[in-house]
Amino acid sequence: MTRVGVVGIGHTVFGRRSDATVQELAFEAYREALADGDVDPSVIDASVIGSVPEYHKQRSLAGVIQEYLDLNPRPTWLTEVACASGSAAIRTAWLSIRAGVHDVVAVIGCQKMTELTTAEILALMGRVGDVQWESVFGTTFPGYYAMFAQRHKHEFGTTNDQLSLVAVKNHYYGARNDKALFRKEITVEKAQASDPVASPLNVYDCCANADGAVCLILAAEDRARDLSDRPVWLDGLGCATASMSVLRRPDLTGLPSAADAAQQAYDMAGVAAADIDVAGVHDCFTIAEIMAYEDLGFCAKGEGGAFIQDKASYIGGSSPVNVDGGLKAKGHPIGATGVSQAYEIVRQLRGDCGERQVPDADVGLTHNVGGIGQYCFVNLFRRD
Amino acid sequence: MTRVGVVGIGHTVFGRRSDATVQELAFEAYREALADGDVDPSVIDASVIGSVPEYHKQRSLAGVIQEYLDLNPRPTWLTEVACASGSAAIRTAWLSIRAGVHDVVAVIGCQKMTELTTAEILALMGRVGDVQWESVFGTTFPGYYAMFAQRHKHEFGTTNDQLSLVAVKNHYYGARNDKALFRKEITVEKAQASDPVASPLNVYDCCANADGAVCLILAAEDRARDLSDRPVWLDGLGCATASMSVLRRPDLTGLPSAADAAQQAYDMAGVAAADIDVAGVHDCFTIAEIMAYEDLGFCAKGEGGAFIQDKASYIGGSSPVNVDGGLKAKGHPIGATGVSQAYEIVRQLRGDCGERQVPDADVGLTHNVGGIGQYCFVNLFRRD
Repeated sequence: MTRVGVVGIGHTVFGRRSDATVQELAFEAYREALADGDVDPSVIDASVIGSVPEYHKQRSLAGVIQEYLDLNPRPTWLTEVACASGSAAIRTAWLSIRAGVHDVVAVIGCQKMTELTTAEILALMGRVGDVQWESVFGTTFPGYYAMFAQRHKHEFGTTNDQLSLVAVKNHYYGARNDKALFRKEITVEKAQASDPVASPLNVYDCCANADGAVCLILAAEDRARDLSDRPVWLDGLGCATASMSVLRRPDLTGLPSAADAAQQAYDMAGVAAADIDVAGVHDCFTIAEIMAYEDLGFCAKGEGGAFIQDKASYIGGSSPVNVDGGLKAKGHPIGATGVSQAYEIVRQLRGDCGERQVPDADVGLTHNVGGIGQYCFVNLFRRD
Repeated sequence: MTRVGVVGIGHTVFGRRSDATVQELAFEAYREALADGDVDPSVIDASVIGSVPEYHKQRSLAGVIQEYLDLNPRPTWLTEVACASGSAAIRTAWLSIRAGVHDVVAVIGCQKMTELTTAEILALMGRVGDVQWESVFGTTFPGYYAMFAQRHKHEFGTTNDQLSLVAVKNHYYGARNDKALFRKEITVEKAQASDPVASPLNVYDCCANADGAVCLILAAEDRARDLSDRPVWLDGLGCATASMSVLRRPDLTGLPSAADAAQQAYDMAGVAAADIDVAGVHDCFTIAEIMAYEDLGFCAKGEGGAFIQDKASYIGGSSPVNVDGGLKAKGHPIGATGVSQAYEIVRQLRGDCGERQVPDADVGLTHNVGGIGQYCFVNLFRRD
């Protein structure tokens, strides 16, 4: 069966985009992807939209976007798995090419978070955990990740400073990414002094809601070689799940879905954790990045805190992670995030990242978590 | 590439299911599908959930269902395209098997409509049309389909009696389907005397909201032959789109997305409209079934009214349609409907439909519309 390549990429600025509707954001990313790949829209066979519908006032989002991109009468549909919706769209588009049904597919990850008030978003997000057993007792996303952090500290001696160092790194790179929401560096002292959210997590341990859209154009191998002189190949895909209820999980120091999804992707692509030159991981909270180092095999279990302290996830370290700023500094438009991670990896593998470039990056990984780890999607990209 | 077969099917009763949550409905259908196919749950590689998330109070529906079905850590994700969400799930599962990633996939179409009040549902549904240009002026689903009906009457002389005859047929068969919401026959006189909704559509021209879930278990050909002694093959798939805004469509007497999707499916399966022995079409309103006869090629453009008047869509006619009662009598739990149509076609091709059986049915079709035709999915099933 055919290999699948990325032939065009586009990315809006992430942030409060009161200047644009969600379909306008999608178009902005799509137009940039067409121009990036020098792809004529007539070659697009279908689109897949990754988004969480309930944040938008317009229903039937895939149809609205398809019309706005002038892609009717071609197929489209939407995928939803909370904050991993964009990666589910990539997976679906990849499957449709691999299955021989389509040759060229546009993937759009998009979310307009700011149509709702913060209170409305909190109400919606609270119900992304287990409504029956957990959110009824007041658990929220920061609360869940605070429990993960407390347990990680208790079991492995991870420190608050180590948590803050993740934020410091991601702000450092976000300050150098013109698509990022937060473009300023911070210090450990500043992170520690920020307001508490859910102990031990402070404001600077949490990513921020944002509006944004990202587009990837995927193509079957022969078409990819026609359409691009530097396609990047999507060679490994993993997707796994775990219980909604964290009470039903064996432990709270990692996400079993991430480890499972990574193994699937490594197996499919025939690579190991040590082969990954650059990664985008789902740092919705700083502790999430530390757990990701361990779940993905970049370091041993319990050593994630030391890993960031040693700067092993900086460029020049053993496993550069979130050198685009991550969710933390770039912002987190939930349906767009998985596609945004892929966008950065493609740019890294093309060598287009300037001062943020990981030297000689051949293999890149994205790790996109839905909810509190009830889903995880891991994708592996490779250059020729 | 492998053929994909249906090896197990399950279907809840449709109706007001105040006795069950949406995940319980999903389990009810899933359990029946496992038993139907004598399939051990250990062979299921993944699930795909078709549903419209915003009708439910629990967010992250795919994760909730995956946990409730005890399918963690296997992959799942949700597809959404309004009332065609179930068919998008079938398409996605089919792609994942065809692409060689999974061998056996459970598809669940489900919807709990009655968690919301009728007023809340109307508010949501109004926004499934084009919010920017149309729903702002008060257009609702009955209003859209009333415009289609008025135009069809004007252009082709279609009569109110012919509209009612669609309802009479579908109630006739619904009365003989133990999964249906409305199990009583009606007359043209009763349909004509029912309260007006949007001229010329009366209450009996409109399908009803319902709760329900349906499960199909799909498998790659070699596994399908192991798991079932009578697999039914999903050999043709079509998916097409049209503008959200009906103002931008060339005419209002049919759905261009349906004609396009049908052509794709016919081409993939190598069959023609005349080969279809039995069909399930998206009769959200009576006029929609008449338009479907024409869009699918069961009769010529403009002849849909005469087609039902001649009983050509009854068992014994040239193209039996909705002999399970259709959305009209069976009820319309929006995410479940596309999978419910497939369930009926599989039973027909197996010859299991008793007094509703179409004799010697070899090839069956489903036609599932999203919104007001901004999406249409057509699937073709064949027995050995």
